[in-house]
Amino acid sequence: MSTTPATPRIRGILSPVLTPFDAQGLPDPDRFIRHCRWLLAQEVGLAVFGTNSEANSLSLGEKRDLLDRLLAAGIAPERLMPGTGACALPDAIELTRHAVGAGCAGVLMLPPFYYKGVSDEGLFRAYAQVIESVADERLRIYLYHIPPVSGVPITLGLIERLLKAYPGIVAGTKDSSGDWSHTSATLAQFQPHGFDVFAGSENFLLATMRGGGAGCITATGNVNPSAIVKLYQTWQQADADEQQKKLDEQRAAFARFPMIPAMKSAIALKTGRPDWIHVRPPLVELNDTQRAALAQALDAAQFVMPNAHQLA
Amino acid sequence: MSTTPATPRIRGILSPVLTPFDAQGLPDPDRFIRHCRWLLAQEVGLAVFGTNSEANSLSLGEKRDLLDRLLAAGIAPERLMPGTGACALPDAIELTRHAVGAGCAGVLMLPPFYYKGVSDEGLFRAYAQVIESVADERLRIYLYHIPPVSGVPITLGLIERLLKAYPGIVAGTKDSSGDWSHTSATLAQFQPHGFDVFAGSENFLLATMRGGGAGCITATGNVNPSAIVKLYQTWQQADADEQQKKLDEQRAAFARFPMIPAMKSAIALKTGRPDWIHVRPPLVELNDTQRAALAQALDAAQFVMPNAHQLA
Repeated sequence: MSTTPATPRIRGILSPVLTPFDAQGLPDPDRFIRHCRWLLAQEVGLAVFGTNSEANSLSLGEKRDLLDRLLAAGIAPERLMPGTGACALPDAIELTRHAVGAGCAGVLMLPPFYYKGVSDEGLFRAYAQVIESVADERLRIYLYHIPPVSGVPITLGLIERLLKAYPGIVAGTKDSSGDWSHTSATLAQFQPHGFDVFAGSENFLLATMRGGGAGCITATGNVNPSAIVKLYQTWQQADADEQQKKLDEQRAAFARFPMIPAMKSAIALKTGRPDWIHVRPPLVELNDTQRAALAQALDAAQFVMPNAHQLA
Repeated sequence: MSTTPATPRIRGILSPVLTPFDAQGLPDPDRFIRHCRWLLAQEVGLAVFGTNSEANSLSLGEKRDLLDRLLAAGIAPERLMPGTGACALPDAIELTRHAVGAGCAGVLMLPPFYYKGVSDEGLFRAYAQVIESVADERLRIYLYHIPPVSGVPITLGLIERLLKAYPGIVAGTKDSSGDWSHTSATLAQFQPHGFDVFAGSENFLLATMRGGGAGCITATGNVNPSAIVKLYQTWQQADADEQQKKLDEQRAAFARFPMIPAMKSAIALKTGRPDWIHVRPPLVELNDTQRAALAQALDAAQFVMPNAHQLA
């Protein structure tokens, strides 16, 4: 089992960065860069190409291009954890190699997610093949456990096997199971061995920090970054439970709607840029009724987006 | 609603053609071509890049290359129905355009399958975007309904809407739900309007033909083609129920094992070519114990592969 590695790891709050599209459904790199800068200014790391980034609706070429544009714009690679998992191993290998070559802090890797009911042996081989093919000691893989969407869970047994075979390279997990007993078991069993556990949403941020975890990677980091970062920075203070309660209320304002369209609508609302509403099929933007209801819910939750003009 | 179109449609038995890999996990085009020829000689059409082809474990470039090699080898495009669905619409558009340009009889199209619980509106937009982008009257789309694997069902309401918007182009479905009530409803509601219903396995072949359907697209077509084709050709004869019972028994011999590795092992066994066993992660080949059990089960089901030497 790995001991804590010598090189510092990315920690804290990261956000699966929303991917802005234009009216034709093409990614808008300029708005993407502005959004990344706005997040970084609030100390949120960039888990670009996550579930909430609609990353699996982007081609490999589109992802490579967006990553290249972020780097060309001067975004620090040590604040980047791109999602690089894919159904097809050649795709996962290519994007992972590209990210590692660019100096990214790590990659967040879905298992191959088309076939269901696959064995731990098969998933071990999939991750091992990426690691062996990329063959770069700088690689840091965060295993992406999100069974409600991927349909392919990452078991504790699989983590144990990967961590033993590739200590240091297998660096942690994002746990989006929504199942605290699973997160808790992962924290207890692996965090002491240099395997960083990130909660999959801020609902579990305080509990994760109390369990020794590394932070959280959360969709609503896109719209509510400063309040989430504050709890991460002050979780040992007396008001932590109160902060957590407020975060939960603010997230709930979004969770009443389909999450990705709701966050994009909120940004459109707060910035006055209607082109933020676009999503790619199979997702659908909020309709007018939903948008009005969202605006009310955000007001009721005392939701503000600081310096939203920087996104406009 | 569309009337039956003027151009003849592909019908009968098709197989999601197994993709042979070498020991390094790379597709083996020569064995792929030989397998396709063997299937065609037994009157089985080629649904290359289906679920049982491990198509979602192949990159877009690998699929394009394999399709090009089949065509270069003289495989008739009018016997081809490549799978072209993908999570990312640009990928689905590119492969579909390539298949239509090559003159393929149709394409079997998964919905975007990463996001779950998506709306019919979102799925309609996804298919519509492919159709509008490819913009070719020769396009024939077969909607691939396989909720146990994709997690994204194609509802009757979605079929109705697509068929109304794109009559002739939206040409049919493969129903791999395993739910006869769904197949039966699809047959009753849409087959009379020029929408061809293919059963997703030979277990439902006789019932589908009796319901007016077009045939079946079945994994075990890869290994048991002639017996399945015979039932398709003689389903109105007196021994049809008996034939169906025998087909069910033969399929059951495979279904005791993970299907794709079992079919590949069966071909390795019958041809004496051990390289047929390879699968790509996250799948795993059968172990020795499973292979011995498979061999026994195939013998018990009186299973033969005619002219297997043509595959060797």
